Amino acid sequence: MQTSRTTPSRTAKRAHYDEPTIHAILDEALFCTISFAQDGQPFSIPTAFAREGNRIFIHGSVGSHFIREIEKGIPVCIAVTLIDGLVLAKSGFSHTVNYRSVIIFGKAEKIEDNAEKEKALALITNQLIPNRWEDLRPSTASEMRKTTILAFTLDEASAKIRTGGPNDEPEDRSLPTWSGVIPLKTVRLAPEPDETSAAMPLPDYLC
Amino acid sequence: MQTSRTTPSRTAKRAHYDEPTIHAILDEALFCTISFAQDGQPFSIPTAFAREGNRIFIHGSVGSHFIREIEKGIPVCIAVTLIDGLVLAKSGFSHTVNYRSVIIFGKAEKIEDNAEKEKALALITNQLIPNRWEDLRPSTASEMRKTTILAFTLDEASAKIRTGGPNDEPEDRSLPTWSGVIPLKTVRLAPEPDETSAAMPLPDYLC
Repeated sequence: MQTSRTTPSRTAKRAHYDEPTIHAILDEALFCTISFAQDGQPFSIPTAFAREGNRIFIHGSVGSHFIREIEKGIPVCIAVTLIDGLVLAKSGFSHTVNYRSVIIFGKAEKIEDNAEKEKALALITNQLIPNRWEDLRPSTASEMRKTTILAFTLDEASAKIRTGGPNDEPEDRSLPTWSGVIPLKTVRLAPEPDETSAAMPLPDYLC
Repeated sequence: MQTSRTTPSRTAKRAHYDEPTIHAILDEALFCTISFAQDGQPFSIPTAFAREGNRIFIHGSVGSHFIREIEKGIPVCIAVTLIDGLVLAKSGFSHTVNYRSVIIFGKAEKIEDNAEKEKALALITNQLIPNRWEDLRPSTASEMRKTTILAFTLDEASAKIRTGGPNDEPEDRSLPTWSGVIPLKTVRLAPEPDETSAAMPLPDYLC
């Protein structure tokens, strides 16, 4: 949703507020950086998350200082960033990166219902490794007691996206400097089994 | 430096305060997420940066709301995160990721000297593409006037690192579930020249 807080002061044409665009960025990310403030001092922490519908979920230890602060429902900002490429222009000034980012403003809702908590844990695990959760033993009551799940709506979320090649000034375009894009990609390398799994076949979802 | 703010409430054995560890993480990263707070509301933005010695530098437009706020010298938190692998345990509870992260608390120092500003721009550009700056035309006076450079010391920086395989509970280790690590890596794909550079040879620093 476009609000004064989600409207960038610069490069406003890169801003997007539609759900499919925001969801696609969130669903590809491996982590978010979540921040809260105390007495004017921001604190940030990277953490795993997953989206379902109009909400994202994070999890943490019930003993974590960070979780205990934000579960109070204080204002947070959640940043998700994917870097897609390095954009090499003729001038230093026009160098930039191609990226897709989402910023979410919101307050935590603590999930208390055990079935809802378990569902959120499945989402977070499967965000990183699709279909993994279905291959695991059920969570124990003790594990669930030790885990806090917090939800945040996407009501005040916005995306910023830059794509394409460099935008050089006309007078620079004849310079003999190579210009273009170096695409970046996060790749998954071959799975490395631990000592219990060296003789096991890889599950289908890892092949 | 270890302070109350840089001492994690959980997994304190993952915390590191030595310069070589912190510097290596910063030097490998492509961006940081910088946050400030206003009236209890945190605001975060991803941005490029570079380190030299005990400081990091960011740049931005003199017209950027975000830059104009943090150049006042208000408290900021800067988060840098590298995700190295997905750690698949026997239980959902023991799933985690291997990561290297740095959190910096500090306040901006605005760099006013033109030679220092130009040096910081060279560092930021070369952080993304080593040796690129030396291949570019000099910055113009107008470009420099439009650019703000802010520095932050690493006096209150800390790293957190997780490496290795899953740490399953002894009673889970005989479960027939595949466990281990899926390493992740950010790779640079083949450079894509724009229309001015299709016939140019690639510079050495891109080969």
